[in-house]
Amino acid sequence: MQQVTLSKLAQLVDGEVVGDPDLIIEGIADLEDAGPEHITFLANPKYAGAVKSSKAGAIIVSPEWKKLGKNLVVCADPYLAFAKIATFFSREEKAPIGVSQHAVLEPDVTLGEDISIHPLVYISSGSRIGDRTEIFPGSYVGEDVQIGNDCTIFPNVTILKGTVIGDRVIIHSGTVIGSDGFGYAPSPEGYFKIPQNGIVQIDDDVEIGANCTIDRATFGKTRIKRGTKIDNLVQIAHNVEVGEHTAIVSQVGISGSTKIGNQVILAGQVGVAGHLTIGDRVRVGAQSGIAHSVPPGKDISGSPAIEHRTWLKCSAIYPRLPQMRKNIRDLEKRIEILEKKLNEGK
Amino acid sequence: MQQVTLSKLAQLVDGEVVGDPDLIIEGIADLEDAGPEHITFLANPKYAGAVKSSKAGAIIVSPEWKKLGKNLVVCADPYLAFAKIATFFSREEKAPIGVSQHAVLEPDVTLGEDISIHPLVYISSGSRIGDRTEIFPGSYVGEDVQIGNDCTIFPNVTILKGTVIGDRVIIHSGTVIGSDGFGYAPSPEGYFKIPQNGIVQIDDDVEIGANCTIDRATFGKTRIKRGTKIDNLVQIAHNVEVGEHTAIVSQVGISGSTKIGNQVILAGQVGVAGHLTIGDRVRVGAQSGIAHSVPPGKDISGSPAIEHRTWLKCSAIYPRLPQMRKNIRDLEKRIEILEKKLNEGK
Amino acid sequence: MQQVTLSKLAQLVDGEVVGDPDLIIEGIADLEDAGPEHITFLANPKYAGAVKSSKAGAIIVSPEWKKLGKNLVVCADPYLAFAKIATFFSREEKAPIGVSQHAVLEPDVTLGEDISIHPLVYISSGSRIGDRTEIFPGSYVGEDVQIGNDCTIFPNVTILKGTVIGDRVIIHSGTVIGSDGFGYAPSPEGYFKIPQNGIVQIDDDVEIGANCTIDRATFGKTRIKRGTKIDNLVQIAHNVEVGEHTAIVSQVGISGSTKIGNQVILAGQVGVAGHLTIGDRVRVGAQSGIAHSVPPGKDISGSPAIEHRTWLKCSAIYPRLPQMRKNIRDLEKRIEILEKKLNEGK
Repeated sequence: MQQVTLSKLAQLVDGEVVGDPDLIIEGIADLEDAGPEHITFLANPKYAGAVKSSKAGAIIVSPEWKKLGKNLVVCADPYLAFAKIATFFSREEKAPIGVSQHAVLEPDVTLGEDISIHPLVYISSGSRIGDRTEIFPGSYVGEDVQIGNDCTIFPNVTILKGTVIGDRVIIHSGTVIGSDGFGYAPSPEGYFKIPQNGIVQIDDDVEIGANCTIDRATFGKTRIKRGTKIDNLVQIAHNVEVGEHTAIVSQVGISGSTKIGNQVILAGQVGVAGHLTIGDRVRVGAQSGIAHSVPPGKDISGSPAIEHRTWLKCSAIYPRLPQMRKNIRDLEKRIEILEKKLNEGK
Repeated sequence: MQQVTLSKLAQLVDGEVVGDPDLIIEGIADLEDAGPEHITFLANPKYAGAVKSSKAGAIIVSPEWKKLGKNLVVCADPYLAFAKIATFFSREEKAPIGVSQHAVLEPDVTLGEDISIHPLVYISSGSRIGDRTEIFPGSYVGEDVQIGNDCTIFPNVTILKGTVIGDRVIIHSGTVIGSDGFGYAPSPEGYFKIPQNGIVQIDDDVEIGANCTIDRATFGKTRIKRGTKIDNLVQIAHNVEVGEHTAIVSQVGISGSTKIGNQVILAGQVGVAGHLTIGDRVRVGAQSGIAHSVPPGKDISGSPAIEHRTWLKCSAIYPRLPQMRKNIRDLEKRIEILEKKLNEGK
Repeated sequence: MQQVTLSKLAQLVDGEVVGDPDLIIEGIADLEDAGPEHITFLANPKYAGAVKSSKAGAIIVSPEWKKLGKNLVVCADPYLAFAKIATFFSREEKAPIGVSQHAVLEPDVTLGEDISIHPLVYISSGSRIGDRTEIFPGSYVGEDVQIGNDCTIFPNVTILKGTVIGDRVIIHSGTVIGSDGFGYAPSPEGYFKIPQNGIVQIDDDVEIGANCTIDRATFGKTRIKRGTKIDNLVQIAHNVEVGEHTAIVSQVGISGSTKIGNQVILAGQVGVAGHLTIGDRVRVGAQSGIAHSVPPGKDISGSPAIEHRTWLKCSAIYPRLPQMRKNIRDLEKRIEILEKKLNEGK
């Protein structure tokens, strides 16, 4: 348990204390569960009511809540400040364990300093593990894999031959990096497998969720660039390139050779066809299906995906299709009557 | 191989024997493959024809089939009776293996009686494994995990730090419990990771399929309540709460902080957005996308989801959109003609 | 590194050399990266321009490109020829490692010749592993499993009790074969588990991607037939039968007891309901949802799926729903005016 003054925490996030700067804080909690020893945060105005009844010792708020009458850390971005303070309280100073006697390492593996290779890890020949990197039980590191500094490889991860991983990369359990891409040439005898000889490269500060699959390239590399965050059960096919600071939510699938830009957001269960280019800052609604390239900055939704605003309108009309059809039939009848009358009138 | 009289099986399911109560049954099989030594079942009237040609020694049926002229176990719910008799024949009395010499357990692990910890299992410090629980090869149990009595953890499962699991829980291979939730605060330097300090709690009699991912909470707990059954490749995000006796079919994704009620059915590939409340007994059609909370008892379908009956109608009209558009154009032409005529008539 | 003449490569693919038959080739690369020591290929006419600037030593082309003025291997199917030549250059002659001292095998396992059982593999009793089969670290082989000759089981695969696997089968990391099907009988106390006593059978030349799940049958077998290729994160439920030479793309889900024919293509994220029959050579567009059986040879798309051509038209009209509704309203107004006029005129 850590103990720290409110002024220390404010300093950590470039914030300003309102109330008692010497208040001792021992942890962070959400509005509901926070006690007098906790700091909590107000990032969404809809929880402003809950703030009043909160028992929290202090609250991180934006400047507009300065007069709340509680111990506060006032700062421009309370959500970011919350993340930083939560990180401060989450730090665990654990000594590195070195290489467990129950791990299996081939002879020519290069290990950095202060590493932790847990029991039942396997590391193949030619691999290099950076300083302070931790590899949890059951994970597999193939031949000639490079893993940078300060990485965390959770249990039961599979990192196959030739994968290159940068610094501060986090890979969650069950994820497979470097499986063969899905490539076959049709032949009279059936599908003929195309060897997948490329690699996967994952740049600095990428985080990859649990049970994802990222296929190696046919030639060259499948690449995930700096700062991109990937949720669970995501499929990234061979030769895909994902830009920087992009967010890919759970169960998304990206087909072969597609290029995703920087700061893109793909919501849950989106599918992207192959050989497309999705521009920077494109945002895609959940379950959308993208069959064509998308220029930068667009918001799209639907399957097949269209402009998000058009999709909203169409989605609202869709349940009225039966009424629309009835309206058309009514019109047909009325016109028929008119036509009759006019013809009779002739 | 077990041998048991028909009357013994009838007793097991509160059923009544029609025919020979002393008939010896040695197993259960489906209508097609059953031989004279097997019992089979008729739960769906559409297979009534197949019953006649079945070589089964006996059949589990509902009262309306009492006069089939075969050896029968007659009972109110033949499907449930089938499940119970199949369970009877599936019981394997295997002696617990204790802790394999090829498993790796940290010193301060608490183990119940009659456990089976198979080779290549890793159990971290502070964990507690209940009586008669079996953990298969390659599975990982993190720090301070609690697993109850009579649980089955299949091979290559990952159960991370602090997870709490009740009694009679079954977790299939490749599933990850307690991976970090997908939470970041945007910052000028990119996504800033929000520490995920909560846990996952799984209550009694839950079954979780293969290669699922259930993320730990940011604060507090992600929770799956009693009796709920989850199929393969399902994603459950941080702080989700799933009620009792709910069924979640394969490849469903549930976003953060959503509450799913009791006895809900989510069909395959459904997506549920975050921070929603899905009421008790709601049923959701396959591939639906839920963007709003749903009151109890509703049947919904579609993406975005609407009332199931409306969706059925709209889905039937959708393929006629080209015809509807043509109808509208025809109407326009006919009106134009009418308008002309009337104006000329002036 | 292998060195081979162009004429040798042409022979390998039943092709004809144009240019220098004695040119030494050391590998294969794509158009962009190929150097003078590489052969590359032109399978898609849209890259014909890139061919001219390519530095490749030789190019695999179809007869129409015979006069390109470069060293060529001319053949009927350049893509298939590329696959074969790439396979030639990918061959690695690695000596089998036998059984690692860090693998755990129960006593009554039957092993073929020239096998490689890597460290941290577990093989249960009664299993049989064929000649030249390789099982990578962290994989689990349950009781009474049969694996044929020349198979590759990548790291962290789970193959459960009773599974039968043919020859030349490739299973990628994280995949689970033989997990319990999702079957319960509703009862007053909640879902009652139906024992899943069947097996999974995987025939010759099947390849299964990473993190897939293939459930065992309730009775009998779940079966994947010869030559079928399955991408990553695919779910195949209990008692499904997939035909020969079928391609199932990433994140597809197939529900229980459905039969998929031969040479079917299911694109990414498709869902197929249970107890259906999908005919031979059916092709299904990405994200489609199939609720009814499909006769052979059909192309279908959409959720629910309809004829692909109809779906294309409807998808193009969908974004114009707001306009269509406006058109209907306009028509209503115009008709109202006409009706008034005519009534006044009376």
